[in-house]
Amino acid sequence: MSIKLNTISKFADLKTTRSTWRHNNQTIALVPTMGALHEGHLSLVKLAHTVASKVIVSIFVNPKQFGQGEDLDEYPRDLNSDLGKLEEIGVDLVYAPDADQIYPHGFSTVISVTGISEGLCGASRPHFFGGVATVVTKLLLHCTPDIAIFGEKDYQQLLVIRRLVTDLDLPVDVMGGPIVRESDGLALSSRNIYLSKQDRQTAPMLHKALMSTRAQLLKGVSMHQVASQTTDQLIKAGFKLDYFELRDANTLAPMDQYGGQPARLLIATTLGRTRLIDNIAVIG
Amino acid sequence: MSIKLNTISKFADLKTTRSTWRHNNQTIALVPTMGALHEGHLSLVKLAHTVASKVIVSIFVNPKQFGQGEDLDEYPRDLNSDLGKLEEIGVDLVYAPDADQIYPHGFSTVISVTGISEGLCGASRPHFFGGVATVVTKLLLHCTPDIAIFGEKDYQQLLVIRRLVTDLDLPVDVMGGPIVRESDGLALSSRNIYLSKQDRQTAPMLHKALMSTRAQLLKGVSMHQVASQTTDQLIKAGFKLDYFELRDANTLAPMDQYGGQPARLLIATTLGRTRLIDNIAVIG
Repeated sequence: MSIKLNTISKFADLKTTRSTWRHNNQTIALVPTMGALHEGHLSLVKLAHTVASKVIVSIFVNPKQFGQGEDLDEYPRDLNSDLGKLEEIGVDLVYAPDADQIYPHGFSTVISVTGISEGLCGASRPHFFGGVATVVTKLLLHCTPDIAIFGEKDYQQLLVIRRLVTDLDLPVDVMGGPIVRESDGLALSSRNIYLSKQDRQTAPMLHKALMSTRAQLLKGVSMHQVASQTTDQLIKAGFKLDYFELRDANTLAPMDQYGGQPARLLIATTLGRTRLIDNIAVIG
Repeated sequence: MSIKLNTISKFADLKTTRSTWRHNNQTIALVPTMGALHEGHLSLVKLAHTVASKVIVSIFVNPKQFGQGEDLDEYPRDLNSDLGKLEEIGVDLVYAPDADQIYPHGFSTVISVTGISEGLCGASRPHFFGGVATVVTKLLLHCTPDIAIFGEKDYQQLLVIRRLVTDLDLPVDVMGGPIVRESDGLALSSRNIYLSKQDRQTAPMLHKALMSTRAQLLKGVSMHQVASQTTDQLIKAGFKLDYFELRDANTLAPMDQYGGQPARLLIATTLGRTRLIDNIAVIG
């Protein structure tokens, strides 16, 4: 298959295209990704087409959001396969910047968001959200989208980016796209390919744990009453638990009991050598 | 005197004016200040008029760049006097944002520049450059100038901002404006009003020390040979020395000897209760 997609690797070229679009009063939606695209990403691209006249997908595996000992080197990369999927679904531009377009020689700037990026994934991956905030700021400044779309699978990340955009008055609306799941409930993730055959069969327990816990929470049972039994089952099944928490859906303030205001139930585990995260809304 | 200057305190109003200017193909220069304007600031405004068709002066005393025990509360503020001076010299817009326009409720984002902001003023004022980088990013994103002008008096700050703008690809040219001095050599500073009458007479020694040291450096004498005698004299005269250093003019890498490439001689002291900094170019 010959790829006819408009793929740009230099910021200067992106600027030219961007200016032409702006001149013609086009609106721009950006879907930032690290490649290894699956139906979850593609659902965000479809959403993008419904809210803007031009859609940019960025593909950049950001080294700054991987910590030491994490899977930067083996993170799945297959640009041609990604471009094939995007060609099929249709996008106006793929921005796959060379590393020096994001991190020029001597790059020394760090953007961090305190508060909301602490705890949860920020506790076990201390470099993660600093890396995310820095690269997302750059991608937003490069692409100048009217709307930027992020998956709710990385729920804390979505809130960190909302906070960042509010704080810096970046002229963009941040949208969250719902989690896409396999038929057995497993949330799609580029890391699912790491799972052994057996772990792949175990993995949907995560989503089931979220669902059953939510049902209990909505009945008024408290998190500390319901969580321990569920986590015991997960640990027995081979999961290593990082966190399993009920949080305020907007501020991520810890909660023990669902009280009517929008909440989010979030879980992070390791299964085999694969980090798996998932979350669901808790709304009565 | 009635002030006829266009003074804006809300980002939303600034955006409206900015859009009109952009629509009419005007270019914008921004001179960010903390008010307490003196001839040094006004020289930057004059420079701004020579490089852009519209000039914005921002006035915002940024709490985040003051450390504990520093002079935030007593930092001189006199908006009416500032506006009078700007009216006389002419500017197109004064942006004096309310605090919540820069730091909205729940503000949690920190922008820091590593490397170049360490050492020198970054060593004795550890919060300073983080505060500067954050507020300057916001002012640049609010005002979207084509050119932003900063005084060379805060030489390290100028380089930190250059690095920040390069790293984030902010679409602005950063210009440095030369230091303006009293006839006896004292660099103009909003903090000079803190000086007692006697300290005011002593203060020009700083500039003389820079001049005489530069003369020695240009003859090939090394910094460690020339510095100790000079610093002894300053200490005897009542200065408390923070640093006195020869640095590469672009990277701020420490140097002991002038070797032909552009260098900068920088000094920071306290006299009485007043922090005084100064610097000069060393070019053969």
